[in-house]
Amino acid sequence: MNRLKLLVVVLFSAVWAMAQTTGESNKEVWKKQESPDGNVVVAFGIDNGRPCYTMRFGDKEVIRKSYLGLELAKDKHASKGKEETDLMDGFELLQTAWTFVDNTWNTVWGESSRIRNHYNEMAVNLYQPDSKRKMTIRFRVYDEGMGLRYEFPQQEELNYFIVKEEHTQFAMAGDHTAWWIPGDYDTQEQETQETKLSEIRSRFHEAVNWGNSSVSVFSETGVQTALQMKTDDGLYINLHEAALVNYPAMHLNLDDKTMTFESWLTPDATGNKAYVQTPFNTPWRTVMVSDDARTMLSSNLILNLNEPCKLDDTSWIHPTKYCGVWWEMIVGKSSWNYTDEFPSVKLGQTDYAKAKPNGRHAANTERVKQYIDFAAENGLQQVLVEGWNIGWEDWANRWKEDVFDFVTPYPDFDIKALNEYAEAKGVKLMMHHETSSSVMNYERHLNDAFNLMNRYGYDAVKTGYVGDIIPRGDHHFSQTMVNHYQYVVEQAAKHHIMVNAHEAVRPTGLCRTYPNLIGNESARGTEYEAFGGSRPDHTLILPFTRLQGGPMDYTPGILETQLKTWSDNPNFIHTTLVGQLALYLTMYSPLQMAADLPENYKKYADAFEFIRGVPCDWKQSIYLEAEPARYITVARKAPYPDVDCWYVGGKCNEDGHTSVIKLDFLEADDYYDCTIYADAKNAHYEKNPKAYTIKKKRVKKGDVLKIKQAPGGGFTMRLYESNPPVKKIMLIAQ
Amino acid sequence: MNRLKLLVVVLFSAVWAMAQTTGESNKEVWKKQESPDGNVVVAFGIDNGRPCYTMRFGDKEVIRKSYLGLELAKDKHASKGKEETDLMDGFELLQTAWTFVDNTWNTVWGESSRIRNHYNEMAVNLYQPDSKRKMTIRFRVYDEGMGLRYEFPQQEELNYFIVKEEHTQFAMAGDHTAWWIPGDYDTQEQETQETKLSEIRSRFHEAVNWGNSSVSVFSETGVQTALQMKTDDGLYINLHEAALVNYPAMHLNLDDKTMTFESWLTPDATGNKAYVQTPFNTPWRTVMVSDDARTMLSSNLILNLNEPCKLDDTSWIHPTKYCGVWWEMIVGKSSWNYTDEFPSVKLGQTDYAKAKPNGRHAANTERVKQYIDFAAENGLQQVLVEGWNIGWEDWANRWKEDVFDFVTPYPDFDIKALNEYAEAKGVKLMMHHETSSSVMNYERHLNDAFNLMNRYGYDAVKTGYVGDIIPRGDHHFSQTMVNHYQYVVEQAAKHHIMVNAHEAVRPTGLCRTYPNLIGNESARGTEYEAFGGSRPDHTLILPFTRLQGGPMDYTPGILETQLKTWSDNPNFIHTTLVGQLALYLTMYSPLQMAADLPENYKKYADAFEFIRGVPCDWKQSIYLEAEPARYITVARKAPYPDVDCWYVGGKCNEDGHTSVIKLDFLEADDYYDCTIYADAKNAHYEKNPKAYTIKKKRVKKGDVLKIKQAPGGGFTMRLYESNPPVKKIMLIAQ
Repeated sequence: MNRLKLLVVVLFSAVWAMAQTTGESNKEVWKKQESPDGNVVVAFGIDNGRPCYTMRFGDKEVIRKSYLGLELAKDKHASKGKEETDLMDGFELLQTAWTFVDNTWNTVWGESSRIRNHYNEMAVNLYQPDSKRKMTIRFRVYDEGMGLRYEFPQQEELNYFIVKEEHTQFAMAGDHTAWWIPGDYDTQEQETQETKLSEIRSRFHEAVNWGNSSVSVFSETGVQTALQMKTDDGLYINLHEAALVNYPAMHLNLDDKTMTFESWLTPDATGNKAYVQTPFNTPWRTVMVSDDARTMLSSNLILNLNEPCKLDDTSWIHPTKYCGVWWEMIVGKSSWNYTDEFPSVKLGQTDYAKAKPNGRHAANTERVKQYIDFAAENGLQQVLVEGWNIGWEDWANRWKEDVFDFVTPYPDFDIKALNEYAEAKGVKLMMHHETSSSVMNYERHLNDAFNLMNRYGYDAVKTGYVGDIIPRGDHHFSQTMVNHYQYVVEQAAKHHIMVNAHEAVRPTGLCRTYPNLIGNESARGTEYEAFGGSRPDHTLILPFTRLQGGPMDYTPGILETQLKTWSDNPNFIHTTLVGQLALYLTMYSPLQMAADLPENYKKYADAFEFIRGVPCDWKQSIYLEAEPARYITVARKAPYPDVDCWYVGGKCNEDGHTSVIKLDFLEADDYYDCTIYADAKNAHYEKNPKAYTIKKKRVKKGDVLKIKQAPGGGFTMRLYESNPPVKKIMLIAQ
Repeated sequence: MNRLKLLVVVLFSAVWAMAQTTGESNKEVWKKQESPDGNVVVAFGIDNGRPCYTMRFGDKEVIRKSYLGLELAKDKHASKGKEETDLMDGFELLQTAWTFVDNTWNTVWGESSRIRNHYNEMAVNLYQPDSKRKMTIRFRVYDEGMGLRYEFPQQEELNYFIVKEEHTQFAMAGDHTAWWIPGDYDTQEQETQETKLSEIRSRFHEAVNWGNSSVSVFSETGVQTALQMKTDDGLYINLHEAALVNYPAMHLNLDDKTMTFESWLTPDATGNKAYVQTPFNTPWRTVMVSDDARTMLSSNLILNLNEPCKLDDTSWIHPTKYCGVWWEMIVGKSSWNYTDEFPSVKLGQTDYAKAKPNGRHAANTERVKQYIDFAAENGLQQVLVEGWNIGWEDWANRWKEDVFDFVTPYPDFDIKALNEYAEAKGVKLMMHHETSSSVMNYERHLNDAFNLMNRYGYDAVKTGYVGDIIPRGDHHFSQTMVNHYQYVVEQAAKHHIMVNAHEAVRPTGLCRTYPNLIGNESARGTEYEAFGGSRPDHTLILPFTRLQGGPMDYTPGILETQLKTWSDNPNFIHTTLVGQLALYLTMYSPLQMAADLPENYKKYADAFEFIRGVPCDWKQSIYLEAEPARYITVARKAPYPDVDCWYVGGKCNEDGHTSVIKLDFLEADDYYDCTIYADAKNAHYEKNPKAYTIKKKRVKKGDVLKIKQAPGGGFTMRLYESNPPVKKIMLIAQ
């Protein structure tokens, strides 16, 4: 990373002003900071000792006067009574510092190779005379929003404290439309609701995914971040957090009389929220705002509020396209477990050698070789294999500690031979660690498990946290669990292992700091298409919400959208076939799965050609069209040297959409060869999903293309310069 | 261990009888088993579907009709409603099996080199027709008591269950005198109370050690095991448990109207007690009984109910006498922490190199060398060093996860040089791992910490669990924590490391199965003498209670009983100087500390001579006199080959005691050289503690010695054959 650090260009960084303003607690004092373009204005105030703030976008109110502060829990061990005095009121403003920063950093992978971090900052240093404690609130104001966080310097009167609740308010200026999922301490796998804020309460119960393996809702107006909203006058507002480290994940609870959200942290088993040792900074609480929905998608505000990369060497981290032994189990045709004979399993005691195989176990040597062959033939770098290790007969939600050992393969999975076979074909296996949420058990085996990966040549692991957390009573998104996910990512980095964590806490941009965190699930993924389906607009909301914090392992590419054609599963995919292709562009991830079965890809070989070629890493991305839950169209420049090559993709909801694409982003003064994958005229995600066309044409910069997307459909397009040697491009595109 | 296993002589083992007795649930059915000597009789019955039992000793009732069963918690994930049906009633007796066993096993260390395991067994196989579930209750009846446990075979209708509470009753036949400490989920460091059962409630509040770093009492009639009682007609009854594995520790709650104790398990953070996967056996619930208090001490019932040794190689396990950098901190003259400058510490961030030493840090290279020299000069094998590693400025009860890393020494502790220095002198350092009860943190560092020990040559670790448990909400004696302590012992065994765990769960004889568990604290140790003192009878109760489960690292040997002579601490030891010597014999442990400062031992060099010589491992032990809280006198045969050498020790309470010792246990038909360490005529633990005499005399088998012990005093005696080469004995005694 040193090389990259050197490339960071600090354009400006200076202190503007410093004002001594002590003793102003009894009247309202306001200090302001505005964005570089002057359009976003954040004001901080003290109202009778209570810190508060407002936020405007141009002449529009984004955040009405909202209070800030933390309520502390009594620490039974505290020797000083003061330590449980709340950090809510009684504050004086000691000092305000204004700064502006403009620099650019290089990504290890991402939607663009370089990111500009341009903001104006205001830090207010507060003092609570009664307790003799200091607290700073820092604001960073960007053209597309702002972040604020609490900072606690080390100080005699505040070495440790327990957070009972954080009371950061976000007072909305109206009854906005919101795209929300229920606040839940353990799952994020719900279908997003689109309602007015005032309608959250009445919609809440049906919005909960009661069938999930672990559900812990806390309030009928509790919602998760990232929360996307739209005001009646066309402002897009997004609430989230950045750099969630050593602190619980934040939910938002709405006072639906005043339309004021307030932070609601995830508790531990005792009900406390966070345990803090100073010096400490909370995560950033972010408010993104724009009058253009595309800005919500192109903004790097969350990434920019995270710390720079902490890994010295990132050469081993690589965007990865993979297939895997997975979808056939999700659909129900195959099984993770090897046998049906065991009513329960005890690791080290259950004898698999004598067990009768059930004949449905997919992670067997022969079947995995087929996937390896398929990957090798199609330029996919890795093959995920789930169900390779013993324990799956009996794994989820039995409150069992020793569920998996992460090192012992099933009798029919020859780990050595398969890794050698894969290596000989230029492919890697991808490791799978389902923890069953038995976290202490996973940590006990972690080092051995990573050593096994190193021994056989795995360099990526998909982790899973299905079921309730052990230590029992804890929650998926608590401070302790946040620390656990972080621990796994850091330990993995020491082993040069990339991590794709499922059911872990939603990402908050930490992949900037630890770019080996190449993926997360943390939302309703493609698997739900096999469980009953997700609405066609689902993937048109996720980029506004879930993806704000980092990439999702959504596992697209199900070209055989009707599952009954090859299984007993009656469900179908809620996109057209081309809609599945579009997801590789509209849902950015450095980790992309070609999730369907090799057999199915053979049926749609010409469409699969697109998946084979599409990159997972980009030099630049331009959002051309966007509206939450309606449509998203994006152009992405491939990271090929010396060749201007673009991919354009669009995806729409059940209403269909006609994209008008002006090719003014093309750089070369040259013709481009263009391949368009589009829905056929009468295509429809439910009635006629697999009707598609593939057309080639020659275009040039400035041309306008009009492409019709079917209901639940989409399109993709590949453009490359005609004149540079085509052979070279094709090689790279492979 | 294979060698030892071969030595086990199975004398008898046969099935007596097998009776089919189905369908007897509606009337009272009774099945009996008696001890080998016929004196103890246990009867099992079914009373309207409820399992129950009674126990007699000769013609005396020990346990009145007492019910057995487990109440289950609702498992929200259970697919079958049956799984939360209690295992309390609705049972039929399917079958009863009677067996008798008599074998002998060799100890790795202990009060004797061989232990006879002689019992009659009765297993009742029960069936609950409504739920289609099976449960076995197994009784093992010994001449000095019995153990019972619940067994759950793997079965379709009972793969998993959650224990809400175990309801094992122990109905006492009268208002016995009891020696008890308050039931507490987190500490055992209370002063024992001696009251009638009916007086527990009124004494409870003052019995709680409210000042302990972690206190969780649960009932005003809740007490801990091992609980020693005495009936008005002279029976000694002891309730405890054996083989506590993967289950929470059991407390006892008294119904003081009916004088019935009932099991009360330690909960986890959610309030549940245990999570069970079948096949599973609970720990044994033990009732020891005798009309002779000495039998309470000589019994090996708890050890016998544990599994045989599971370690293949035990050659690296050795009884150990040690001194250490410890008492000077406990007394307050020195500090564990290196500096007084840091209000708090963050590992990896706090820079110790720049910190100003406080000048009181005892674990410094120079001071540790003095201890090493002292150990080498006096035949002590190891030197414990506490406060060697960074973090002590700020460690206990701050709810802080990353308290210690267990590998980074303070700047003034040269770990490499000190281990080399010790090795050159034939001494080892003893490692210290204070976890501050941050259990996940300890497990994360465990492998590195043990590797560090292996690298430098440490082979024993003292662990500590001060403060509330992290994961927060959990308790020291819960199932998860029981599993943690077990995990540490097993991991340590892989590294050939012996474990002495402080503040961990009270032992239940597991040292038979894992003999590298060479010590536990789990009670109020000598440290409390520096915190205000423990009553003189304290160490006359512990052998009846705490020591039933295994040895205690009591850290005796404080010869300078008046702390003010060398410190600002006003407290004094509540024994005479000779009383301290006696503890090496009356409180058996393979791990014995010479806990006082080297400087103090120089003041009492002739008395220290006894500590230098006394073994920590014995060929045979004979309890000569015993009465709980009054006096204990024991004779122990040293494990020297070819030489008959005995040590005799007596300890008494504040009333003093005159021991009459008949030397009929001596084996050789020869004179013995006898050295007697005794209280001087006017000695008294408070008024004149350091008045002692050392006399030598020549005795022979059958002689009777009368030795007067002062209030709070004791005596010790060493006898060895006069004729075998004295040189050889002296050599061994060194």
